[in-house]
Amino acid sequence: MIKLNTNECPYPPAPGVARLAAGMDCNAIRLYPDSNTASLTCALADYYHVKKEQVFVGVGSDDVLSMAFLTFFNGSLPILFPDVTYSFYDVWAKLYRIPYKTCPLDESWHINPNDYKQPNGGIIFPNPNAPTGLLESLDTVEEIVKANPGVVVIVDEAYIDFGGVSALPLLEKYDNLLIVQTFSKSRAMAGMRIGFCIGNERLIQYLKDVKFSFNSYTINMPSQVIGVEAVRDEAYFKEITGKIIATRERIKNVLRDLKFTFPDSCANFIFASHEAVPAKEIFTKLRERDIYVRYWDKPRISNSVRITIGTDAQMDALTDALREICNNA
Amino acid sequence: MIKLNTNECPYPPAPGVARLAAGMDCNAIRLYPDSNTASLTCALADYYHVKKEQVFVGVGSDDVLSMAFLTFFNGSLPILFPDVTYSFYDVWAKLYRIPYKTCPLDESWHINPNDYKQPNGGIIFPNPNAPTGLLESLDTVEEIVKANPGVVVIVDEAYIDFGGVSALPLLEKYDNLLIVQTFSKSRAMAGMRIGFCIGNERLIQYLKDVKFSFNSYTINMPSQVIGVEAVRDEAYFKEITGKIIATRERIKNVLRDLKFTFPDSCANFIFASHEAVPAKEIFTKLRERDIYVRYWDKPRISNSVRITIGTDAQMDALTDALREICNNA
Repeated sequence: MIKLNTNECPYPPAPGVARLAAGMDCNAIRLYPDSNTASLTCALADYYHVKKEQVFVGVGSDDVLSMAFLTFFNGSLPILFPDVTYSFYDVWAKLYRIPYKTCPLDESWHINPNDYKQPNGGIIFPNPNAPTGLLESLDTVEEIVKANPGVVVIVDEAYIDFGGVSALPLLEKYDNLLIVQTFSKSRAMAGMRIGFCIGNERLIQYLKDVKFSFNSYTINMPSQVIGVEAVRDEAYFKEITGKIIATRERIKNVLRDLKFTFPDSCANFIFASHEAVPAKEIFTKLRERDIYVRYWDKPRISNSVRITIGTDAQMDALTDALREICNNA
Repeated sequence: MIKLNTNECPYPPAPGVARLAAGMDCNAIRLYPDSNTASLTCALADYYHVKKEQVFVGVGSDDVLSMAFLTFFNGSLPILFPDVTYSFYDVWAKLYRIPYKTCPLDESWHINPNDYKQPNGGIIFPNPNAPTGLLESLDTVEEIVKANPGVVVIVDEAYIDFGGVSALPLLEKYDNLLIVQTFSKSRAMAGMRIGFCIGNERLIQYLKDVKFSFNSYTINMPSQVIGVEAVRDEAYFKEITGKIIATRERIKNVLRDLKFTFPDSCANFIFASHEAVPAKEIFTKLRERDIYVRYWDKPRISNSVRITIGTDAQMDALTDALREICNNA
């Protein structure tokens, strides 16, 4: 089975993680975990050169994003996000009864910053975007953040470590910016459920106030302990993200040869469409071969499959299968 | 430092937990955890002799309770719960804009089932109750469940394993009953954040529908793996809960000798009030001795401290300190 459908990392977490897990004091799990997640918060603050008061940790970035929707998106004006984007934004908006409006990506799948200059109750977009993998420039991000001083602009950087440029430096200039990242992709720890965001101290305090008002203990103890190691081992982190980027660039060429087109992904996946074979057929025929990619039967994106970048061997098996499927079509 | 303020278990988790943790495949944490928490759900279903479709697992019982509030308490009539009870019920009601009404416990801290026969949008109470530790009989629980066939009645059994009688057998007769339990107390795993509930298959399906609609992956992989071991080792579970019960009964006598009064706790804590020394003073003077108990400056309960049952040695240190504090008062 080759699993290329949920954008996980094909490489194991940092070697120190296994050492720490094996040496963990199991007696300590009888106690509630540190509700402030202090060690992990400090490790992240050190790594990203921000104050620990600028970091908020949650149970995966879904938890962080959901909490940010609840905390910051409570005006009467609609929040704005792209029409093609992460599939949970409209879900949380509905859950918390937040009015929302989607802004269509342009024909090359890019965000038009002018769309985000209308009256709104907040803005969220991923960069790179999903499922396209397209990166917006820091200038575009800044243009949107700068044009909206009265609301919170959330940049969801789940895939930023695969060659993107983070908006973190903009935090020095803008207090309405919140940057969300995750351990589930580039840090190879989807199983531990760790996400975090970095922003102005005041925004982070609001998030904490909301979170602690109804749930004190969410990040389990092992995630707190071994999450720190994943942050500290920068060399390993660079090594595995570098390998994934190299594989992605190599596979882009193979896919082009196979007559696929795709936005030029800066993430750990490629959103590809074939000139002759419908995406649904590709998805189904790959599944028959025990190769899993992601397909959505939704407007604008129903003729593409999203393929996670796996190991080189996994990607070679995938492209062999695609060659068969497309040549026989 | 003696920590008797958050009702954790003073004994380590089941011995197999440490073995499993040490042998855990850290490569597996690069993948998302099983969103259905299948192994843990099945272990719980086996242990409690229910179908796996009757079990829902969450990130601690706070997550399960919060999800149950969101799922089941959405009518226009107020939900009902005791005036003295777990401090998060009114928080979740406010969070989800659920109208609520509290029913006063009687002068002996018991629930009056007649209070729960008025029109309502749902009912929740802990059994044993917190912070009193008082157990209601299965007859009382059944009387309330039976009188409210049109709404969901949640019995929060966080402390049931310390000598209480669970309402689980009532599930055969009532489809409006939801029973919530936790791994944080009797199963000595507060650090892993595992809670669960058991109810009619249809109620559990509703809970899953709501949960999966906005967050697929919440229970991390290690919690799923080692949680199973905590359920399977019944002998150890009986041993540690038995020890805590024995310590509790012994300490009740010591506290009586020291002129404390308290509801006759069936939980792993005692809610005690001294005939002469104010609770706030006891709380403060214990803290000066590095002994931590819980105190609330709230109506009806501001003259009691809640003392978690620790090891015999911890409790002897506590009662020695109380003897000093009360004799010198």
